[in-house]
Amino acid sequence: VREKLIASALALMDEGGLDAVKARSVAQAVGVSVGTVYNLFGSVDGLLLAANLTILEALNALGRERAGAQRGGEQVGASGRVLTLGRLLGLSAAYIDFVAANANRWAALLAFNRSRKLAETDRTYVARQDALIDIVGEVLRTTPLGDNGPRRRVAARALWSSVHGIVTMNYFGADEAGARQRTWAQIEWLVTAAVDGLYAAKA
Amino acid sequence: VREKLIASALALMDEGGLDAVKARSVAQAVGVSVGTVYNLFGSVDGLLLAANLTILEALNALGRERAGAQRGGEQVGASGRVLTLGRLLGLSAAYIDFVAANANRWAALLAFNRSRKLAETDRTYVARQDALIDIVGEVLRTTPLGDNGPRRRVAARALWSSVHGIVTMNYFGADEAGARQRTWAQIEWLVTAAVDGLYAAKA
Repeated sequence: VREKLIASALALMDEGGLDAVKARSVAQAVGVSVGTVYNLFGSVDGLLLAANLTILEALNALGRERAGAQRGGEQVGASGRVLTLGRLLGLSAAYIDFVAANANRWAALLAFNRSRKLAETDRTYVARQDALIDIVGEVLRTTPLGDNGPRRRVAARALWSSVHGIVTMNYFGADEAGARQRTWAQIEWLVTAAVDGLYAAKA
Repeated sequence: VREKLIASALALMDEGGLDAVKARSVAQAVGVSVGTVYNLFGSVDGLLLAANLTILEALNALGRERAGAQRGGEQVGASGRVLTLGRLLGLSAAYIDFVAANANRWAALLAFNRSRKLAETDRTYVARQDALIDIVGEVLRTTPLGDNGPRRRVAARALWSSVHGIVTMNYFGADEAGARQRTWAQIEWLVTAAVDGLYAAKA
């Protein structure tokens, strides 16, 4: 029943965003009482949190899968700069693909993060978001930032937020037609400049 | 009356975000009929658009003022890289200050942009947003991107969206205490890396 309620919440997010998820609609779709929703999740926000965790897990899985495939296809002897650039652009492309395929669901998650206290106070939820940024942090481990953990975390978070900013500025509320091309041109410029700068500063 | 209705809409945005702006509340606050709101702005979205234009103008004025002050205080003989970095960080600081001082109002504008068709179709509104990105584009004119207009526009939009992404990830729905410091550390890393890369690629 728990799984079914989460699936129903996700379907409602796909249709009508965050505001479309009501205890009554979700319960009705699964054929249980409204009380069951509250018993299992404590509140509608609790249900939304559980649904968002599955979204974050899906994005995490996609990121790790793409990072693995990328590593398998890398040219032997390529420079660190080229490898880092390829890895970061590969992760950026994965993020675009994910947002394009899950636009409403992802917009609902972002709206949840902006408006619900639970998004900041639930430790599992915060950890699951940090895990996404850690994928970027791992790529940066072999750069001149190396083992400087604090600096690497700043850089990973900055790159993540930048790519996220570029994607959301282009994907939500804009015409989809040119969105991918515009998004990609901006991400490619930004990530290339940042990686060039990262290796230039070292030299 | 037009000015008063806009001021009232902005005050409601400050209090309760986008959803708090209703024709009735705005009319009541100013002491006119609901019909007057529709006569003057066509719809509530029309009123919100007019209110958002004043927000964009305020941000634009701040950006241009800071850019002017920055130019006045620049060290004679400084390298292009140092000048560009200083200018972009100055604009970033202006953006943080603006968002910190107008958090609810700015979040309401962003929500409007995500959810209302008028945000994409009104030419004046789109032009006013482009004018903000042009401030960044002007700074990039003296960099190795030079007169390459299309490339410069991609770069300006990428940098704007990146700084915006970093600010929003830190400012909305997060504890304010460490927000500025975290935001600044990430922006400083990102902008420095991008500027280093921009000048390194040329060399």
